[in-house]
Amino acid sequence: MTDTVRILDTTLRDGEQAPGFSMTPDGKLRMARALGALKVDVIEAGFAASGQRDSDAISEIARQVEGPVIASLARATRGDIFAAGNALAPAPRRRIHVFIGTSPLHREFKLHMSRETVLENIRSAIAYAREFTDDVEFSAEDAIRTERDYLVECLSAAAAAGATTLNVPDTVGYTTPDEIFDLFRFLSNHVDRSSETIFSAHNHDDLGMAVANSLAAIRGGARQVECAVNGIGERAGNCALEDLVMAIRTRSDAFGVRTDVDSTKIMAASRTLAQITNTRPARNKSIVGANAFAHESGIHQHGVLQNRETYEIMKPEDIGLTTEAIVLGKHSGRHALAARAEALGFVLQGEKLEKAFAAFREVADEVGIVDTARLLGLLSEQETGRPQRLWKLNKVDIRAPVAAKGHPVARVELEHGERGRVTDIASAPGALDAAFSAVSQMIRVPARVHALEMQYIAADPEQTCPDEQGANVLVEIQIEVEGEIFSGRARARDILPCCVSAYIDAASNAEAVRAVRGSFSAGARAA
Amino acid sequence: MTDTVRILDTTLRDGEQAPGFSMTPDGKLRMARALGALKVDVIEAGFAASGQRDSDAISEIARQVEGPVIASLARATRGDIFAAGNALAPAPRRRIHVFIGTSPLHREFKLHMSRETVLENIRSAIAYAREFTDDVEFSAEDAIRTERDYLVECLSAAAAAGATTLNVPDTVGYTTPDEIFDLFRFLSNHVDRSSETIFSAHNHDDLGMAVANSLAAIRGGARQVECAVNGIGERAGNCALEDLVMAIRTRSDAFGVRTDVDSTKIMAASRTLAQITNTRPARNKSIVGANAFAHESGIHQHGVLQNRETYEIMKPEDIGLTTEAIVLGKHSGRHALAARAEALGFVLQGEKLEKAFAAFREVADEVGIVDTARLLGLLSEQETGRPQRLWKLNKVDIRAPVAAKGHPVARVELEHGERGRVTDIASAPGALDAAFSAVSQMIRVPARVHALEMQYIAADPEQTCPDEQGANVLVEIQIEVEGEIFSGRARARDILPCCVSAYIDAASNAEAVRAVRGSFSAGARAA
Repeated sequence: MTDTVRILDTTLRDGEQAPGFSMTPDGKLRMARALGALKVDVIEAGFAASGQRDSDAISEIARQVEGPVIASLARATRGDIFAAGNALAPAPRRRIHVFIGTSPLHREFKLHMSRETVLENIRSAIAYAREFTDDVEFSAEDAIRTERDYLVECLSAAAAAGATTLNVPDTVGYTTPDEIFDLFRFLSNHVDRSSETIFSAHNHDDLGMAVANSLAAIRGGARQVECAVNGIGERAGNCALEDLVMAIRTRSDAFGVRTDVDSTKIMAASRTLAQITNTRPARNKSIVGANAFAHESGIHQHGVLQNRETYEIMKPEDIGLTTEAIVLGKHSGRHALAARAEALGFVLQGEKLEKAFAAFREVADEVGIVDTARLLGLLSEQETGRPQRLWKLNKVDIRAPVAAKGHPVARVELEHGERGRVTDIASAPGALDAAFSAVSQMIRVPARVHALEMQYIAADPEQTCPDEQGANVLVEIQIEVEGEIFSGRARARDILPCCVSAYIDAASNAEAVRAVRGSFSAGARAA
Repeated sequence: MTDTVRILDTTLRDGEQAPGFSMTPDGKLRMARALGALKVDVIEAGFAASGQRDSDAISEIARQVEGPVIASLARATRGDIFAAGNALAPAPRRRIHVFIGTSPLHREFKLHMSRETVLENIRSAIAYAREFTDDVEFSAEDAIRTERDYLVECLSAAAAAGATTLNVPDTVGYTTPDEIFDLFRFLSNHVDRSSETIFSAHNHDDLGMAVANSLAAIRGGARQVECAVNGIGERAGNCALEDLVMAIRTRSDAFGVRTDVDSTKIMAASRTLAQITNTRPARNKSIVGANAFAHESGIHQHGVLQNRETYEIMKPEDIGLTTEAIVLGKHSGRHALAARAEALGFVLQGEKLEKAFAAFREVADEVGIVDTARLLGLLSEQETGRPQRLWKLNKVDIRAPVAAKGHPVARVELEHGERGRVTDIASAPGALDAAFSAVSQMIRVPARVHALEMQYIAADPEQTCPDEQGANVLVEIQIEVEGEIFSGRARARDILPCCVSAYIDAASNAEAVRAVRGSFSAGARAA
């Protein structure tokens, strides 16, 4: 048996089908390109029969995305299969993925079909699909709850009719690693098939076990796994592609298989998806979450500094992440601060370390996470005795456009620690952009907003207010300055000033870095 | 062996320690109360020696939270153990949780200790901890990478010195279900201990397997699992409490154990944590994510309507979720719409169904998810032929306060489908609250903002803009009207109008429901 596991990515089908993750045709094409770069084996691009829009999106992907096989889902009906074959026609390599429910529950309550009728449907559907392509996948929906002998019959019938991939989905996310290992081993031993036929696993994460179940299926003989980036999909989603690929890679000793995925493109694919769907993975999401490679606690950091392996099993570079592994925060100790400072060219010892640590703790209590840029500002301040974060927001006003079709005008007043008050105005199609633009003119950091998130969670009326000033708007911003990303954050009572303060915070971080490295390029400054 | 698995919740220690999840002492106390209601066995409330703030927070929880054992972490030093014992003194039942690294990597690179020195430290630390309480837990940090014979020695020494819980953490999130099952079985057979001593698992989710690994540890003999709500914790976090508890409950046939956790308090605990840390779990997070019990796709919905078990293995009520299982969205079909309409008292057939379905599709394309309130408005509109969503935002201006300490004033102009333009002003400490207040005066829905999230993700400059109008601000809002939560959303180019439009959208949803049920209470209307 080959030791390569094929990756079918269903981000654009099962993933896109979930509430909150729907994508425009343009978005789907962009995501498909990211999946091509990731070198997945198969892109399930949609479900052609579900509508013209989906069918057109599949065709566009089939036409434009090179590398992976392009697939469409289809029920076991001539109409669905025709629609799939049609939509896939432009693809150099195409797959039709035919499914039908095989469990008693599906047969009785959904399909109203006998065992024999389901079998007949499988045979005729697969044969018809083979008229469009040699690459046909069959899925026995709700396979996990199908009688074993009957499941063997269904899969054998599909293989005999020409299916080359046999998918055994845990449609309801119900199974456990032991069970699914046993099932795949049983099927490997009992299903009649040619040596080229491959078993495939499709697990849902309802009980938090999609990754472990997929790995158990591999041990049981599966050689394709259906995954989605960031683990999106119906309900709790599918097996997360990034987890599966990195588990196989990191624990090759335990699993003894490989994939052809280029893991260094994982972060890019994850971020593309986040942008298209306006939804980031959780901070604590494995592999791609903001914290996945971050160590804040003092004890852990001490360990990491001594020897990276103490607390790390993967390198950020493996997934294409170019960031610092250690995040300093309120739990970080003197050790971590001194080491990071040293890496940045500052020597902290004795009283100097104590002073810097006190200043650091104050900032950490305020902002939570102290990234490299913020730390540089703090260290320079300690070193030179001159305050580094000089800009502060005094006031921001928005004036409505004068003409009906004009743009709003922002008037922003900043306070500079040395130069005093500065005011400027700017106009843009949106008030927020106008305010950012006015700030940018004054502080001269050529920034572009990359992402902005605002959270407002009302305090429980029975509880005391979490912040004494009643500041319950939190804004986190990322700006891009000459290709580099800088973060900023602010808490405030009011939405627009909060956004502007976060912008100033990020720009100050960028300034701190540039002050150490040298100024922005002259051209950019003039811009 | 007992079939009850104890749950140690470390949301307030390992969870709180992670970047982005730090909590104020008040927040920790609130969360501890939620954990008390959840009936976890042990609350690890913090790490007393890490500072006065953490120590005070532990004492406060020890004083005020009834039910669970309260625990503090401590390194294997007299200072740490004294600090823990001291902080825990007010608790009726208290546990000191002593840890030391046992793997070669930890011994050599972090502790610089020989095997024998580590063992001596274990013996003296546990003995000292027993002076403060009979309930002492020992953790062999990085146990998974510790030599097996030496791990047996360490755990046996801890048990002999008086530890009643022996924790075997996978500190780096490296292990697999098979490995950890084998390890716990081995330890169960080889560690010298009394019959009351319990093995505990503490798994991290770096490879997405924390839940499966914890369940495998239980099969191997563990009778305590360390978990965190929403799976927060260092890096990719700890085993998610909700996943473990519901897997044990749903698959009691496979695992044959139980917990004392009251699963109906899971959603409340998850939401409390989200509020305190300003961070929601991902939409596709198992059990507690917004999608966990949502079915949008047409095929799945058809199945669910026929028989709930087709696609559901848990009931929303099991975790304290009182919502509808089916979410209608752009993938929903006629079947689902007609069934939901019928449940709401509207009969849709033939041409009427076609018309309603066309209208529904239009709304779904626009807002993504069509919840009950929005659907009611749509159905009433179809039924009566009268438009139901009558309010629209024309303009919102903010005027800066006149006096230095005054509040900003919002002037909002709305358009009512029948009554034409209406304008009102209101003032509040924040511009956003002022604008909401002005809207509320005009549309007379007595609403309180419960939560608001804004996302702005810049379009890739190489891509065409995802929205023709360049609307890349997305606001999702939840308002509370007389104890009920209603959702609204809006996309716009500008931040403040976007927030106000989302508020109007949510208020319109509330109105649609009340229009069917009867009006708001008179008192509320006058308020």
